Amino acid sequence: GFAKVDLHRPRRTGFPEVIYGEGKTQEQLKTLFLKLRESQTVALATRVSREKAEAVLTACPEAEYLETAGILRWIPKDVGYRPGYIAVVCAGTSDLPVAEEAAATAETLGSRVERIYDVGVSGLHRLIDQMDVIRQAQTVIVVAGMEGALASVVGGLVDSPVIAVPTSVGYGAHLGGLSTLLSMLNSCAAGVAVVNIDNGFGAGHFAARIHQTQHWATLEEEAAK
Amino acid sequence: GFAKVDLHRPRRTGFPEVIYGEGKTQEQLKTLFLKLRESQTVALATRVSREKAEAVLTACPEAEYLETAGILRWIPKDVGYRPGYIAVVCAGTSDLPVAEEAAATAETLGSRVERIYDVGVSGLHRLIDQMDVIRQAQTVIVVAGMEGALASVVGGLVDSPVIAVPTSVGYGAHLGGLSTLLSMLNSCAAGVAVVNIDNGFGAGHFAARIHQTQHWATLEEEAAK
Amino acid sequence: GFAKVDLHRPRRTGFPEVIYGEGKTQEQLKTLFLKLRESQTVALATRVSREKAEAVLTACPEAEYLETAGILRWIPKDVGYRPGYIAVVCAGTSDLPVAEEAAATAETLGSRVERIYDVGVSGLHRLIDQMDVIRQAQTVIVVAGMEGALASVVGGLVDSPVIAVPTSVGYGAHLGGLSTLLSMLNSCAAGVAVVNIDNGFGAGHFAARIHQTQHWATLEEEAAK
Amino acid sequence: GFAKVDLHRPRRTGFPEVIYGEGKTQEQLKTLFLKLRESQTVALATRVSREKAEAVLTACPEAEYLETAGILRWIPKDVGYRPGYIAVVCAGTSDLPVAEEAAATAETLGSRVERIYDVGVSGLHRLIDQMDVIRQAQTVIVVAGMEGALASVVGGLVDSPVIAVPTSVGYGAHLGGLSTLLSMLNSCAAGVAVVNIDNGFGAGHFAARIHQTQHWATLEEEAAK
Amino acid sequence: GFAKVDLHRPRRTGFPEVIYGEGKTQEQLKTLFLKLRESQTVALATRVSREKAEAVLTACPEAEYLETAGILRWIPKDVGYRPGYIAVVCAGTSDLPVAEEAAATAETLGSRVERIYDVGVSGLHRLIDQMDVIRQAQTVIVVAGMEGALASVVGGLVDSPVIAVPTSVGYGAHLGGLSTLLSMLNSCAAGVAVVNIDNGFGAGHFAARIHQTQHWATLEEEAAK
Amino acid sequence: GFAKVDLHRPRRTGFPEVIYGEGKTQEQLKTLFLKLRESQTVALATRVSREKAEAVLTACPEAEYLETAGILRWIPKDVGYRPGYIAVVCAGTSDLPVAEEAAATAETLGSRVERIYDVGVSGLHRLIDQMDVIRQAQTVIVVAGMEGALASVVGGLVDSPVIAVPTSVGYGAHLGGLSTLLSMLNSCAAGVAVVNIDNGFGAGHFAARIHQTQHWATLEEEAAK
Amino acid sequence: GFAKVDLHRPRRTGFPEVIYGEGKTQEQLKTLFLKLRESQTVALATRVSREKAEAVLTACPEAEYLETAGILRWIPKDVGYRPGYIAVVCAGTSDLPVAEEAAATAETLGSRVERIYDVGVSGLHRLIDQMDVIRQAQTVIVVAGMEGALASVVGGLVDSPVIAVPTSVGYGAHLGGLSTLLSMLNSCAAGVAVVNIDNGFGAGHFAARIHQTQHWATLEEEAAK
Amino acid sequence: GFAKVDLHRPRRTGFPEVIYGEGKTQEQLKTLFLKLRESQTVALATRVSREKAEAVLTACPEAEYLETAGILRWIPKDVGYRPGYIAVVCAGTSDLPVAEEAAATAETLGSRVERIYDVGVSGLHRLIDQMDVIRQAQTVIVVAGMEGALASVVGGLVDSPVIAVPTSVGYGAHLGGLSTLLSMLNSCAAGVAVVNIDNGFGAGHFAARIHQTQHWATLEEEAAK
Ligand SMILES: Nc1ncnc2c1ncn2[C@@H]1O[C@H](COP(=O)(O)O)[C@@H](O)[C@H]1O
Ligand SMILES: Nc1ncnc2c1ncn2[C@@H]1O[C@H](COP(=O)(O)O)[C@@H](O)[C@H]1O
Ligand SMILES: Nc1ncnc2c1ncn2[C@@H]1O[C@H](COP(=O)(O)O)[C@@H](O)[C@H]1O
Ligand SMILES: Nc1ncnc2c1ncn2[C@@H]1O[C@H](COP(=O)(O)O)[C@@H](O)[C@H]1O
Ligand SMILES: [Mg+2]
Ligand SMILES: [Mg+2]
Ligand SMILES: [Mg+2]
Ligand SMILES: [Mg+2]
Ligand SMILES: [Mg+2]
Ligand SMILES: [Mg+2]
Ligand SMILES: [Mg+2]
Ligand SMILES: [Mg+2]
Repeated sequence: GFAKVDLHRPRRTGFPEVIYGEGKTQEQLKTLFLKLRESQTVALATRVSREKAEAVLTACPEAEYLETAGILRWIPKDVGYRPGYIAVVCAGTSDLPVAEEAAATAETLGSRVERIYDVGVSGLHRLIDQMDVIRQAQTVIVVAGMEGALASVVGGLVDSPVIAVPTSVGYGAHLGGLSTLLSMLNSCAAGVAVVNIDNGFGAGHFAARIHQTQHWATLEEEAAK
Repeated sequence: GFAKVDLHRPRRTGFPEVIYGEGKTQEQLKTLFLKLRESQTVALATRVSREKAEAVLTACPEAEYLETAGILRWIPKDVGYRPGYIAVVCAGTSDLPVAEEAAATAETLGSRVERIYDVGVSGLHRLIDQMDVIRQAQTVIVVAGMEGALASVVGGLVDSPVIAVPTSVGYGAHLGGLSTLLSMLNSCAAGVAVVNIDNGFGAGHFAARIHQTQHWATLEEEAAK
Repeated sequence: GFAKVDLHRPRRTGFPEVIYGEGKTQEQLKTLFLKLRESQTVALATRVSREKAEAVLTACPEAEYLETAGILRWIPKDVGYRPGYIAVVCAGTSDLPVAEEAAATAETLGSRVERIYDVGVSGLHRLIDQMDVIRQAQTVIVVAGMEGALASVVGGLVDSPVIAVPTSVGYGAHLGGLSTLLSMLNSCAAGVAVVNIDNGFGAGHFAARIHQTQHWATLEEEAAK
Repeated sequence: GFAKVDLHRPRRTGFPEVIYGEGKTQEQLKTLFLKLRESQTVALATRVSREKAEAVLTACPEAEYLETAGILRWIPKDVGYRPGYIAVVCAGTSDLPVAEEAAATAETLGSRVERIYDVGVSGLHRLIDQMDVIRQAQTVIVVAGMEGALASVVGGLVDSPVIAVPTSVGYGAHLGGLSTLLSMLNSCAAGVAVVNIDNGFGAGHFAARIHQTQHWATLEEEAAK
Repeated sequence: GFAKVDLHRPRRTGFPEVIYGEGKTQEQLKTLFLKLRESQTVALATRVSREKAEAVLTACPEAEYLETAGILRWIPKDVGYRPGYIAVVCAGTSDLPVAEEAAATAETLGSRVERIYDVGVSGLHRLIDQMDVIRQAQTVIVVAGMEGALASVVGGLVDSPVIAVPTSVGYGAHLGGLSTLLSMLNSCAAGVAVVNIDNGFGAGHFAARIHQTQHWATLEEEAAK
Repeated sequence: GFAKVDLHRPRRTGFPEVIYGEGKTQEQLKTLFLKLRESQTVALATRVSREKAEAVLTACPEAEYLETAGILRWIPKDVGYRPGYIAVVCAGTSDLPVAEEAAATAETLGSRVERIYDVGVSGLHRLIDQMDVIRQAQTVIVVAGMEGALASVVGGLVDSPVIAVPTSVGYGAHLGGLSTLLSMLNSCAAGVAVVNIDNGFGAGHFAARIHQTQHWATLEEEAAK
Repeated sequence: GFAKVDLHRPRRTGFPEVIYGEGKTQEQLKTLFLKLRESQTVALATRVSREKAEAVLTACPEAEYLETAGILRWIPKDVGYRPGYIAVVCAGTSDLPVAEEAAATAETLGSRVERIYDVGVSGLHRLIDQMDVIRQAQTVIVVAGMEGALASVVGGLVDSPVIAVPTSVGYGAHLGGLSTLLSMLNSCAAGVAVVNIDNGFGAGHFAARIHQTQHWATLEEEAAK
Repeated sequence: GFAKVDLHRPRRTGFPEVIYGEGKTQEQLKTLFLKLRESQTVALATRVSREKAEAVLTACPEAEYLETAGILRWIPKDVGYRPGYIAVVCAGTSDLPVAEEAAATAETLGSRVERIYDVGVSGLHRLIDQMDVIRQAQTVIVVAGMEGALASVVGGLVDSPVIAVPTSVGYGAHLGGLSTLLSMLNSCAAGVAVVNIDNGFGAGHFAARIHQTQHWATLEEEAAK
């Protein structure tokens, strides 16, 4: 075969192997997706165009395609969520595809998500209004382009870990997102960690790891009683 | 002489020539300062160390040296301020030298200054508490290092022009202030313009230009009646 | 809805919310524009292609589309300008779209504009010829690509604040405008502040803020009598 | 005073304010440390030289100075740790100061730490030997300079979140750590998030946030029964 | 003629001149290829699209086109390989075109190649399984995108020279491959040298040079007996 | 010997070998200088500190040391200049060392120099006053830091070639002179070529090459009659 | 009109105004070209596509279009060349468009050109064979992409000024020509100055300035007799 | 202990572990060196200052310190070299420390070295004179700063692999060696691979790997008979 699918991964990391759709042909995508569909509890492919998705949906009609997120996934009907939720906060409407990639990834990996969108710092009251639902999240993902100030502002207002996702939304000195990335890495608020530009998947996965170990910690402590 | 002091400047731009102290010898500084002292309404030198300043102070005891700002200046006793004031807002205590350079420059050029210091966005309540005095300023200077989010947050809360000064306070991916500079240039809040890293002088001068034309506009409109 | 339009903004900053057209669908643009049309004194959308504009113009025929500026706007017939004007100076014919974005933005926000175009420093006499109209402006916007020297030259000849807009006009070591941006940030002339590459909107808005506070200062001082 | 210490922070974020020692004078450090000592459950200052530390230790003998970490802290005797631990993994002996800053920060904020040092990927067997203790951690911090490959390798072997800290250890094309930073941001292993170059404090704090919410989750779920 | 084909090269460097197909017209390609076909022991053209290749294949049917590698070549039937082989190791399926360019180049220049593909470090067991065939190679080429950690891991496990080829596979902070390139240049494993991003040809050629001098060394030592 | 002095150079390029003093020991400098003194028509060493110069001056008292330029040289008494001169124009007093390195290099290589210093564009009248002497030069060297606008302004006013030398005079976004360098490379005025940051030597040498071929052209044309 | 054509230029700099075709419409190009045709001794437009050129050629049939150079020009029949010539040397066939832009520009401005193409340093004998014609040129233009070594090698072999033109020919770490540009700026051979990436026009113009002042120098010296 | 010395390395890679002296204390260096001295066939430490070396030399007098290379090593008396040699070629006298680090590393790892120094391309005849000894080497190391053209020129003249080492020798746009590094990565000559800036050790080690596998290949082929 053209690829060594890492089916060993779920056992090693507790998380399923995920397909990175970019640059794969429709044929490769279908083959890999069906393989994951058979051997794993869920199947997830990111960066998938609607066109490529169609072929897989025909072969595997129980899968679903999420347009904004560019995600193709299959989750068995009866799968539930861990207790608690992840908050996905985003600055502007242009950041939506990345925010949705993060949200859909986290959901597919077993975490409920609360979406708080279009609350950039240029209109601070919009964020303040939503602080309650953000503060009670197990972990917070902040998605922003431009100067990315939202990550620092949120980081200073909550006590849970904040995962910042810089987006490529901007122009000129924005340098394709590099500017936002640097900004978030230099956050004056402690408790902020960063993933790659536009890497909604990475943030969703990282958040699910936090959420899962939180959940396992609970189970272990309980078991220890 | 070793330099063509631009004594023509006040007539051309309405503002005095200013000495950039960096890299000048004590002797050069003294000569230039005394020349400005004689021919201009005020004399101002920036980036001056205490050591270099001493020699000038001996020769011109009516001058004063501002330690934190690194500024040496002479202002005649009876000079007053234009109506209104400039707000100088800064994020952390390490940004103080740049904030003071901005403040002292603006004062020397005829504008009263209100200082609002150590109000970085990681503790948002500190800023909110001071919004009244910031909102009533003729123009606002925001001095910040790290991710520089303060500029965007202030920009979204006032209707006067906001001059953002990135500082070199930070480390690693801060890249000597480049990161803050890029961040401020990509501010999601309209109404923010930027000067060079650590350029408190430039911000103070720019603010005084705004303030002065505001004042002149008033005088002209009055005169026109 | 897909977006939290910041209708609270005019009250907070004295300026209307503006639509950033890039990346929005025709449908989103229309919805947002009509919402602003209803609730604000003016409606403004930037970075709008002719194609996207058509749909809005059909729904709101009293709006107008400015081709070169890429701006769609609606201004009630009887709106006037503040006293005085903003000078928009540009270096070459390729910088025109950015210069027009700045000019149209400032006009929409209530400031009269004088345009002084194609006066780059490689033919200095062209600029010198126009200095009178530039010197009498309330504030000056300088739009230039290549090495951006025009900002420094103008900065040294006027006493009003100079807002420099680097453009992406150039190639090779121009780095998409970064080169001009850096150049302008290092201007040897005091009194120059900078906005993002190609950010005509930002410059126009910033200039209007200066102009407005100048005007308010006048009104306040008068009222104080 | 010269600073607005954010004493409100513990209530807002659940974590104490921390002093950033760099650039503060000995006098400022002492004043701030004693203020935190009085009002918070623990007191922590990072980037403190031995020389600066001495003055505080004299005034507050119950504090302790950690040489390698450059940390000054005070923890009341009877404070215990949350269940579970954080693994701090580092690549080479030169990365030790950053690893220790991370470890000491996490400990001060209530998390037990297991140290797994000098296990860089050029000698993979050293890492493999320690995988058991790494796999059972609540969260893993990976500290590395050079090409930072350790973060990806660890990320592919565990199911807990991995916080990567690039260090400035390297030369030439290492660009002061930028190279490692970029490398870690592009990790081919999911579940890796990144903090600023040499920011051991940020990683320790972020890990403690994860650990704390894990612990709280447990308490809440228990309480919910 | 439009080009001075370096037919003198084989005599000077022991290796044939090779055509760089990028930017050449179909006509230029054909002319050059036929010229090499006549005067050299093999003919090789890289970065050739299928479309451009067709014209040459018609004129020279004994040539062959390698789709994935983008390579067009002609090797006389009876040419054999040197003893031993070069291992071409790659991280992911997206790196295949570059890996194949390296492999096909080396083969054309007289070296047998073993392909070990899709063994990125996020699933380390896949690499470990193949170490035997990698360890016995005369020289190893490692092709990887993202953070490029594979080069360091392999470098620490073999005693032959490792040629690292960064690929442009990645996004955001990957900077078109610069990030992988920097990473590989800072490898903590000794024995790793690097070629340009996506330069499979360069790696294949370099490896063949190593292999050839190894072979010649053998012949010389034998002859010396 | 530790170095292969290129004594063959004068014959090959018509110009003497020059010593680059940076990083050479006092002993190495002396040995090389005396060797050049013997075999060439002039001897020149750049980037020489006063301290290093002393030792050579003792051994070769007919040499002279130029403090500002950091140049050590020996020219036989009776050497004259070519007809015409090179204009060295500089922006500010801090650019003097580089301007002097250029001037002294050109003089040593046989060209008379006219110095026009401290005529930066922030005070344009200073430059305009000196245009006559600049316009009549055989070639013009422009030395400037900050935004380097002087090169473009001069380039647009003369018909001789303009050699631009960016200096490292500036701070923050000046990036050690990179900003000026980029600016000069993007000059909107044709007829400007650029040398490395602070490379006064390179500019002086290049100008002398122009001047010499001009002179030789004259002699040849005359001879051809 | 949309542009202020600088017809004053020939008198000021001795060289005609030139049209930069990039980004101009066919209509604008025609208007400007015809205006120059009337008022200047020659008319020149660079970066012109064949498509745009057609319209002008119809309106002004005595103009000619140079495909490879992308140049449109009109030269009166009876114009001759100055004595002597400029050598245009280029490294590879992909650099031809830039080399031709340089050559055609110089020719249009009155200098005869000798072309020495495809002599890159990877086959040094090709260059050595042509050194005679290069050495006798009044000035040398070196056009190269990749690592640009040709500039240094030529610089060390001639005594006339060498103008280096980096091209964007390359990939990966070539960074669109930045790599070649930096390389040429750091040439170890004295007597090399550099223009922007792909700026064949700039090099041709600069060379013509050298050549013209050389010629004028001759005339002046003669006249002085 | 503070470090996990990789004593397993010789068995795994055929090469001894080497100490990177930078940033290690004198005490750490001594401990590690003595450990290697006992367990390996040779002991090698790079980037060691004379001061640090003294302490080790006292404890282990049979070790030797190489000043220019900054290397401390111990080789048993009776160790010989493999057949053949490595050529270390360098451009200028300032590159000597890096060239010596490469040479001494290769020698310590069992390869004889021929040194060809100060043969930069600005005086090409110096290189041509030495081509015979370079051509007969098993592998060639080229050490150069500035524009690094030497690597390409040598690469085009030999048929063995060329390892290019960029050095930090240069200033301004040299960017601490980045410029040379990029240049070498873009070499127009095939058969050139690159190591980190100033990484003489890496080049020497890589060359020894090539040399050793060459030697082993010989032994194996012989054994196979
Ligand atoms: N701290 C500063 N940063 C940037 N520019 C400055 C500063 N202080 C003074 N200047 C400018 O430097 C000019 C004087 O430069 P110089 O002739 O070198 O002393 C003044 O006209 C100011 O425009
Ligand atoms: N080593 C460190 N690196 C980055 N941030 C730090 C570090 N130590 C403390 N901080 C942050 O700096 C803030 C205090 O800054 P300051 O008010 O300047 O002392 C704390 O609230 C922390 O969030
Ligand atoms: N200030 C300088 N900047 C750049 N290159 C220089 C400088 N001074 C001398 N050179 C060059 O350095 C060469 C001598 O270098 P070296 O053999 O290292 O002394 C001379 O041939 C000049 O081309
Ligand atoms: N000069 C050098 N440059 C880069 N890497 C080196 C150098 N010297 C030694 N090394 C590497 O550093 C490793 C030892 O690092 P450490 O454990 O920190 O002493 C060795 O195994 C070598 O691979
Ligand atoms: Mg919005
Ligand atoms: Mg604080
Ligand atoms: Mg024009
Ligand atoms: Mg080690
Ligand atoms: Mg895979
Ligand atoms: Mg001055
Ligand atoms: Mg060729
Ligand atoms: Mg030399």
